[in-house]
Amino acid sequence: MKKDLFALKGTICYSKNQKELVFAENSYAVCENGLCAGVFSQLPEEYKDIPVKDMGDRLIIPGFTDLHLHAPQYAYRGTGMDLELLDWLNTITFPQEAKYADLSYAKKAYSIFVDDLKHSFTTRACIFATLHRPATELLMDMLEESGLTTMVGKVNMDRNGAPELQEKSAQASAQDTRQWLEEIKGRYDHTYPILTPRFTPSCTDELMTELGKIQREYHIPIQSHLSENFGEIAWVKELCPTSRFYGDAYDMFGLFGTKPAANEEVSNPASASSNTCPTIMAHCVHSTDEEIQMIKDQGVYIAHCPESNTDIASGIAPIRRYLDMGLHVGLGTDVAGGFSLSMFRAIADAIQVSKLRWRLMDQTQAPVTLEEAFYMATIGGGSFFGKVGSFEKGYEFDAMILDDSNIRHPQEISTRDRLERLVYLSDDRNLVGKYVQGRKVI
Amino acid sequence: MKKDLFALKGTICYSKNQKELVFAENSYAVCENGLCAGVFSQLPEEYKDIPVKDMGDRLIIPGFTDLHLHAPQYAYRGTGMDLELLDWLNTITFPQEAKYADLSYAKKAYSIFVDDLKHSFTTRACIFATLHRPATELLMDMLEESGLTTMVGKVNMDRNGAPELQEKSAQASAQDTRQWLEEIKGRYDHTYPILTPRFTPSCTDELMTELGKIQREYHIPIQSHLSENFGEIAWVKELCPTSRFYGDAYDMFGLFGTKPAANEEVSNPASASSNTCPTIMAHCVHSTDEEIQMIKDQGVYIAHCPESNTDIASGIAPIRRYLDMGLHVGLGTDVAGGFSLSMFRAIADAIQVSKLRWRLMDQTQAPVTLEEAFYMATIGGGSFFGKVGSFEKGYEFDAMILDDSNIRHPQEISTRDRLERLVYLSDDRNLVGKYVQGRKVI
Repeated sequence: MKKDLFALKGTICYSKNQKELVFAENSYAVCENGLCAGVFSQLPEEYKDIPVKDMGDRLIIPGFTDLHLHAPQYAYRGTGMDLELLDWLNTITFPQEAKYADLSYAKKAYSIFVDDLKHSFTTRACIFATLHRPATELLMDMLEESGLTTMVGKVNMDRNGAPELQEKSAQASAQDTRQWLEEIKGRYDHTYPILTPRFTPSCTDELMTELGKIQREYHIPIQSHLSENFGEIAWVKELCPTSRFYGDAYDMFGLFGTKPAANEEVSNPASASSNTCPTIMAHCVHSTDEEIQMIKDQGVYIAHCPESNTDIASGIAPIRRYLDMGLHVGLGTDVAGGFSLSMFRAIADAIQVSKLRWRLMDQTQAPVTLEEAFYMATIGGGSFFGKVGSFEKGYEFDAMILDDSNIRHPQEISTRDRLERLVYLSDDRNLVGKYVQGRKVI
Repeated sequence: MKKDLFALKGTICYSKNQKELVFAENSYAVCENGLCAGVFSQLPEEYKDIPVKDMGDRLIIPGFTDLHLHAPQYAYRGTGMDLELLDWLNTITFPQEAKYADLSYAKKAYSIFVDDLKHSFTTRACIFATLHRPATELLMDMLEESGLTTMVGKVNMDRNGAPELQEKSAQASAQDTRQWLEEIKGRYDHTYPILTPRFTPSCTDELMTELGKIQREYHIPIQSHLSENFGEIAWVKELCPTSRFYGDAYDMFGLFGTKPAANEEVSNPASASSNTCPTIMAHCVHSTDEEIQMIKDQGVYIAHCPESNTDIASGIAPIRRYLDMGLHVGLGTDVAGGFSLSMFRAIADAIQVSKLRWRLMDQTQAPVTLEEAFYMATIGGGSFFGKVGSFEKGYEFDAMILDDSNIRHPQEISTRDRLERLVYLSDDRNLVGKYVQGRKVI
């Protein structure tokens, strides 16, 4: 059964590869049964009678994947940004997240978050909820309703939280996680669970062991934080004295990508087998050579969150190096370490901080280009969901329609210039249509 | 004659000093004849019958002064941002500025610029035009009409430009500058000329000498660029081998603030005497100790342009040091080295880059706080225009009314949090009213 068959016509733009963008003016992107059938300058015979939505000269680009953000933190985005990570967690974040024990507060807060995310440039996202199972399920219900495709994690944390934000024991945390996974089984079409140990300082070895078991039992991916801040890294070394480096403290429990022996590509979470543990690690600002090698060998995804790394004064991740090594790198807004939900802004931030890194730290590492940052926001992060982030044939049909007519200019400009301007100057007014897996979301 | 007498009622917020903000809820800011008569929780007897414009709980803050931007570059903001300064000037900027020889193009481009500036968070600005006298006067006419208070400079450049963007000789440049100053004499109420040698590489010694004479004859302030980029600094040393440092290459011609002997405060440009040369130098990213001392001694204003310094990969200026030394520091968007006209964004950028500077360069230099950055955007730059940037009694009445209701939140937040959110999350939709010197602009 064909769920849908239509074409969007306009100025189509997507990544050919990490270094090149394709610009196809007056062209058609065909959606067939949720997948892209290709981009055509004229509709092929087999599609000549399908409905065409003519967008004039508006830009049509693949959707963006936000590879790392915290839904409960959206409530206080853009405030309290004068602290480093550990103080910020204790003073602001933990007390705020504790509020989600109250389902009526969660409903109020998550309604705003989901509505704003729906109207943002994000089509897919990997989201941290809180440790509260009912609020996490509520968030998942709302996200399913929004039409976006997301992975959502009930957070695990059984140590070093706040009195009001910590699970009673490793066993209680594991039990609650299993209950969550059972309760949502079969409930959603495009909302997936993802295992979410907050970070090593929040999870005892016993809890990590349990999460490793759950991962292998349920075959679901995992997300966490890695090497964001010096204080955090030193603390992990204290807490896990036998780990060789921070990433090893996840790997010890089988929570750090696919073991080299398996030698499989990280693939769609739906198809994760017992050999694979698709993993996203946010930040990787201060990763050591050994850690980076393990990230590569085990196919771990890096969620680069430049705005957050600036706001919490963590530093600037060596993204040029990661790209050149062929690592999987996507972008994250990391709300509310980052304040903005805009993935266009994440692209701009990634370019900007890479220039400062070049200037201030290492002039052998060239800044990130527009092409590379756009790739990270589309295919880079999108591939964690499968074939996502492109209009090449066979990719899932995630598309955004952008009207840039309010960014006025007195002269002719190229399509690439139009895209670059949207990176730096757009806001939600520029988004006039959004499709995810062929579903019209707005 | 009283031009105006009214009060704005709302949540009033302004700098008490560099370290403290005042928040006055349900209060009145009284405007009398273009000046602020003070902020009151209840209207004093003498004002009890004046018209009150009740803004509910909207924020009312002083206007922002954009201390450095290029009007002709607004046309291509947000594009071509992958070059360093000198290449960027030659490849993009000079060819684009050459277009302003055509008055019909200038009209089209400046109409967009002035309209967007009018609807931005800027109430005052110090603006570079191009070297073209007619286009500069057109820009000044439009700015006068907008209601904003601005200083505008016809640019001087008689060397190292492009074939199509360079004045014929030092004498021709000086002559054209005099003609410009004569033609606009008495034409404007709130639009002022400012002498604008582009930067040392663009101006021969002969031209600088002429500009020194013009400054002393017309008693007008000056603006230029200083120590932005390493390539530029090395080039200045080649071009002016007798200068001790870059700033000295301006000072040699009497174009670098007020000489210590005069020992006068830099004051309203209208009152500049033969002893004073109120000066703005944009950037000062790589100033030497000697240069910084001269900036201090001679009361030179620094226009800190963090977004531009990031985009053109110039670096991060040591603003903590400048503030601690008591230098005059304001903020500039530096469109189109910067892409955004938003002074709220300039505040955010100033805070953000100062965190990266602290993290990556010098942990003895604390990041800039919200209070400090807000001060720079209001009084810091505003004081170049006189008593501007505060609601203390006697300040010129520049005010902005901000509706932040679209930045939703599920919980109660403080007024300071509301302000911080506007810094990070606002766009032009949040501006619902603007006054400059008591004039209602929007």
